[in-house]
Amino acid sequence: MRPQEVIEKKRDNLRLSRQNIDAFINGVCDGSWADYQISALVMAIFINGLDQEEQDALVYAMLHSGEILDLSGISAPKADKHSTGGVGDKTSLIIAPLVASCGVAVPMISGRGLGHTGGTLDKLESIPGYNVNLSTEEFRSIIDKCGFAMTGQTADIAPADKKLYALRDATATVPYIPLIVGSIMSKKLAEGLDALVLDVKTGSGAFMQSLDDSKKLAEALVNTGSDFGVKTQAVVSDMGQPLGQFVGNALEVYECIRILRNDADELMLPTRELSIELAARMLYLCDSVSDISEARKVIEQKLADGSALERLRQNIELQGGDPSVCDDPSALLATDLTECPILSDTSGIIAEIDTLAIGNAMVEIGGGRVKAEDEVDPAVGICLNSVVGRAAKSGEPLAVAYCRDQKQTDTLTNKLKSAFKISNDVPVVKPKLIHAVIGE
Amino acid sequence: MRPQEVIEKKRDNLRLSRQNIDAFINGVCDGSWADYQISALVMAIFINGLDQEEQDALVYAMLHSGEILDLSGISAPKADKHSTGGVGDKTSLIIAPLVASCGVAVPMISGRGLGHTGGTLDKLESIPGYNVNLSTEEFRSIIDKCGFAMTGQTADIAPADKKLYALRDATATVPYIPLIVGSIMSKKLAEGLDALVLDVKTGSGAFMQSLDDSKKLAEALVNTGSDFGVKTQAVVSDMGQPLGQFVGNALEVYECIRILRNDADELMLPTRELSIELAARMLYLCDSVSDISEARKVIEQKLADGSALERLRQNIELQGGDPSVCDDPSALLATDLTECPILSDTSGIIAEIDTLAIGNAMVEIGGGRVKAEDEVDPAVGICLNSVVGRAAKSGEPLAVAYCRDQKQTDTLTNKLKSAFKISNDVPVVKPKLIHAVIGE
Repeated sequence: MRPQEVIEKKRDNLRLSRQNIDAFINGVCDGSWADYQISALVMAIFINGLDQEEQDALVYAMLHSGEILDLSGISAPKADKHSTGGVGDKTSLIIAPLVASCGVAVPMISGRGLGHTGGTLDKLESIPGYNVNLSTEEFRSIIDKCGFAMTGQTADIAPADKKLYALRDATATVPYIPLIVGSIMSKKLAEGLDALVLDVKTGSGAFMQSLDDSKKLAEALVNTGSDFGVKTQAVVSDMGQPLGQFVGNALEVYECIRILRNDADELMLPTRELSIELAARMLYLCDSVSDISEARKVIEQKLADGSALERLRQNIELQGGDPSVCDDPSALLATDLTECPILSDTSGIIAEIDTLAIGNAMVEIGGGRVKAEDEVDPAVGICLNSVVGRAAKSGEPLAVAYCRDQKQTDTLTNKLKSAFKISNDVPVVKPKLIHAVIGE
Repeated sequence: MRPQEVIEKKRDNLRLSRQNIDAFINGVCDGSWADYQISALVMAIFINGLDQEEQDALVYAMLHSGEILDLSGISAPKADKHSTGGVGDKTSLIIAPLVASCGVAVPMISGRGLGHTGGTLDKLESIPGYNVNLSTEEFRSIIDKCGFAMTGQTADIAPADKKLYALRDATATVPYIPLIVGSIMSKKLAEGLDALVLDVKTGSGAFMQSLDDSKKLAEALVNTGSDFGVKTQAVVSDMGQPLGQFVGNALEVYECIRILRNDADELMLPTRELSIELAARMLYLCDSVSDISEARKVIEQKLADGSALERLRQNIELQGGDPSVCDDPSALLATDLTECPILSDTSGIIAEIDTLAIGNAMVEIGGGRVKAEDEVDPAVGICLNSVVGRAAKSGEPLAVAYCRDQKQTDTLTNKLKSAFKISNDVPVVKPKLIHAVIGE
């Protein structure tokens, strides 16, 4: 089948057959489709769309373009969580040990941060010695021993996605739901899961800024998961402000361990709450409990009794990291950074936080990436003293940034300051943490 | 301006500004746009469209991406003809000397054949010694001496088109009118013309097979020509059957010289008629005559009195060819070919001729190209004994193919035979040669 035949069909708004989509994805993987042919079809798909059957065929072809993990040797049910990405979005480090401590295996394959959004692998690497490049055998063995493992994507998993994503990024074809679903689900389904919970972010720091779009993405992800026989739910959660107290790789691990140690500050509570909700849904989908409120109880219990912290300690040891951070998380905090307080110019109620601006400031101080090949500085970051709906006082810090370069502080201060909108008259509604739950 | 910004606008069905289109075409020429970005935008243009203002901006940018001929030293009005391509479509060789003999300069930049359609350069090269690779100076000088010159496109003329066309061919984005107009008009306007006549073919051997599509293309070409200050008309002419008696490079030159020598066979008359019509319109647009019927009279006179033949003779000499073909056109006919008569199996009226099949048979016997880099055999070809509406008799030849390879004759015979549909009952309407005239 010539690439032109497939491109022509979608150009003319016709349905692609499974054979057409297989030819496309095979062509992406074996190089028989030129990049310009791939991008022409992707644009035609973007404009003319894919229906659910085409969507499933795309996910199937992308999934089977690579390795599917064989975790059949692990008898426990297997569940994972995936987030569409945000600022301060650190729940994986809490959820994985928490769910594992309830007897559900969590084979978590994660990514790195890009642009304003962080990535789990970067966060994990701020733990001294922690190895996120596990072989499939190591991955399997660590799950077997402590119930979960966290690693990066090997080249063998959904190889079509890497190439497609790079081309989409260069051709303005990223924000289209069926292509996003193809990218996410081809990787997640390769984990051989029984259950999957998707954390679809919404708001100023999310990929999908409007609630409506976020719900649509959530529905599309859930439909595809179900079509592939994986019990799937999506939680649409708030990214109208950063999640929790810290943004920055080591700082976020610090926050997670504080939560796992039942030592959370008030500003860390949203992180705790969302982690419990997502973990409970993973448990519930695995049929380990009678209903979701029962699941929440079990999860809260495992958090309270230190079981989850214990699992994290075991995992860090198995993945080559220094488990003493579980006893003294403040060891994660660098002491050689420049402290840059962002002082409020006015008193009032915090009405809005431009989360994208905060994510971008993180990139600027070296804690995030512009391009996939950039290095990140694990130590830098931002401590927030603000949440929407809280009072701000003139002269008091809205946030404190920790950066390397004294010279950066002035522009950083201005940028961060303008991210906080303080109101003296408009009534401020405290945003919900969870906007919707889709599926099952 | 990042390519993604421009792509995103057209992806979202917004109008591109002149700056956007300039950025695109500059990016095509200087390599700062990757091929996959070009093809993504081209697909978005194909699906979401360009309006007339965007269309003109595209032509303008493509035209100014290269050299525009300066023929201001030539005081005569300047006119050219462009055909969208067909089978047996050989009128340029008659029109150029004919119009030149009326005092209008014809700076004709032509192309080569591709697929089932022939090209003027290939035809000219069947004249021994004829040089179609003129420098701009030679081109100007030959026009000055004999009123016309015929050459290939240099790399300096509309360089964006070459790259765009190759990408469109590989990404199923060729048949979209604004892109076709961009390709044709950016090259033709580079000739610095006063008047342009477009021969838009319609029917089974044409690029646009339906009359409706052909008319739309004709209108778009005329609108663009007018927007650029060039007097433009389009003639929609029939390509439901091959034009004239011969298909094949040397054979077509032979037919043209026979016509210029006022020695045309009956089956050559459509070639003569269409050539006169197009030439007359070029003359008329140049304001050399009061009306189109007067123009036809002048043209017929220059054909009848041998002036046009004399101009061709001068031109062949100036372009390095052997002018004796003007005296003895049969010298163009090769004598070492295998003759392959296509005999009719039945008697009846010729109802249809699959012109595409005849063009493709030409390619198969070596007279045309599959890829741009293929060589063509100037000698091979097909002599038609049939036109739609004429009687065919069982056992008598519908056509005779002249080919190199004895082995090809069987499959060739079958393919060519099935191109002729002979009817015994359906009333056959003889098709019009000229379906419509658009413009002025």
